[in-house]
Amino acid sequence: MDRSAEISGMFFSAQEEIVAALQDGESKRFAASGWERAGFGHGLTHLVEYGEVLERAAVNVSLVRGDHAPPAITEGHGRLDREGLPFRATGLSMIVHPRNPYAPSFHANFRYFEVGDQEWWFGGGLDLTPVYPFPEDCGHFHRTLKSWADRHPHGDYDSWKPACNSYFYLPHRQEMRGVGGVFFDHLTLPGEAPDGLLPLIREGLATIVPAYLPLVHRRAATPYGQRERDWQMARRTRYVEFNLIYDRGTQFGLQAGVNVDSVLMSMPPAVGWSIEHIPPADSVEGRVAEFLRPHDWAGATTPTLATTA
Amino acid sequence: MDRSAEISGMFFSAQEEIVAALQDGESKRFAASGWERAGFGHGLTHLVEYGEVLERAAVNVSLVRGDHAPPAITEGHGRLDREGLPFRATGLSMIVHPRNPYAPSFHANFRYFEVGDQEWWFGGGLDLTPVYPFPEDCGHFHRTLKSWADRHPHGDYDSWKPACNSYFYLPHRQEMRGVGGVFFDHLTLPGEAPDGLLPLIREGLATIVPAYLPLVHRRAATPYGQRERDWQMARRTRYVEFNLIYDRGTQFGLQAGVNVDSVLMSMPPAVGWSIEHIPPADSVEGRVAEFLRPHDWAGATTPTLATTA
Repeated sequence: MDRSAEISGMFFSAQEEIVAALQDGESKRFAASGWERAGFGHGLTHLVEYGEVLERAAVNVSLVRGDHAPPAITEGHGRLDREGLPFRATGLSMIVHPRNPYAPSFHANFRYFEVGDQEWWFGGGLDLTPVYPFPEDCGHFHRTLKSWADRHPHGDYDSWKPACNSYFYLPHRQEMRGVGGVFFDHLTLPGEAPDGLLPLIREGLATIVPAYLPLVHRRAATPYGQRERDWQMARRTRYVEFNLIYDRGTQFGLQAGVNVDSVLMSMPPAVGWSIEHIPPADSVEGRVAEFLRPHDWAGATTPTLATTA
Repeated sequence: MDRSAEISGMFFSAQEEIVAALQDGESKRFAASGWERAGFGHGLTHLVEYGEVLERAAVNVSLVRGDHAPPAITEGHGRLDREGLPFRATGLSMIVHPRNPYAPSFHANFRYFEVGDQEWWFGGGLDLTPVYPFPEDCGHFHRTLKSWADRHPHGDYDSWKPACNSYFYLPHRQEMRGVGGVFFDHLTLPGEAPDGLLPLIREGLATIVPAYLPLVHRRAATPYGQRERDWQMARRTRYVEFNLIYDRGTQFGLQAGVNVDSVLMSMPPAVGWSIEHIPPADSVEGRVAEFLRPHDWAGATTPTLATTA
């Protein structure tokens, strides 16, 4: 069984639609760059930097295969006996760092693995990282994800949301990286082909644009000054700290020693550590840290955040 | 035996002199902040940010003690049986990120540990991280360090230099963080008190200013534009990547969960990951990566770098 090429086609197709949606409203053009290595695989990245709306946005799809599954693929799966077997892997990953500090950053990833002849699984996640969290934005994002997961028998918002919170947590800061989303891994149908999960994944990919892009368009023109830009630089330090210290995908990519700049595509184009970026507790910015703890975003009542200084 | 308070006095005294030297030529004043926790220890940080010459400079001294030495103190020392014994630790650490891209960043650290009743050792290092490496600057830095180490029977430039190169190496980039310096650890005199090493350490502290500051003053007024600033942002990504992924001191500090902002004092106030920061191989910037490999900086002939674009 090798369904990886077919499923990569679904990812490449979603990439096209996502990039088109991101391009709509961004005057600077995305640039595409591809790579191919015989016997290993191929990939395509669409990237824009220093755009009017998007300070950095990248959507990447790749399909790779190998004769010996590395530990990073199989560990955590509870099936270490699969290590060293032939594998195929395909995935879509994307990151958006908008320029306006009132527009949240966003990350999404869908991936499909096959190991040996029988075993396959999906993983994925979408999460939101606001600089100034608006409860209505967080609510829209989470409700859209929940609505997608609830439409599918194998969707499970109630366990995917806490899994996301657990994953995107910075122990040394005792903070979330953002306001979470959903995160799942090792999703399979034992003894079946992946077809039964394709509607869930296909619609998950189609959920990226409606879950996130309205929040960018809603905030892209909000006036801001140096204070908001400074706070954005400060919040982005958490993004860097998380990805370099904790993120398994980043660590795997760096250890594998492939294209470092692709692995670190998720990093922000401008960020800064500064004592002056540490805000007073009673300022709007000071309350954001408190706000950036796990909340029931999809619930009927969303948490509130006092937004006056 | 508890010599830690006395040795911390040497560090506090050196801090005063180093901060005075950094302040000389910097119009913005350093600010001091201290902390003290009964039964645990105390510390003092001098910091300036967004100065005319110094974009960020910090000099930190602390003295701490505890009833149970954590693994991070004893591991690598080859004496794991000392884990859990009472310990005292004191150290000076400092970082300078100049504003001008032609002036190199600098890091230095001297530390003293006592575990149990008998065991003590020093560790330390000084290293230089240029954005545009000038061979004469690297040569001055290394020759000054070598001259210090050569004056002392327990100084060992020839093994401390490769140790520094090994430590400040980024495997995923196959690059040095900078042009190295010296790095030593677990330096002790078996069966003796630490007195025999005090001249080495005292003069090492006194070497910080003459080894580094002339390079800042030499380059602080060199004109530069956006291209040089962009390349500085790009090189600083290596600093962030090294400290968050590999640096043992940073990892220990974050795991111990003390003051995160103090632990991350070394991070630059402005940095950015960008595809546009990847220079062509035949540009000055493109040749810097090649230059940033281990060289015999203290030797008679210094490596050359073509500095025309």
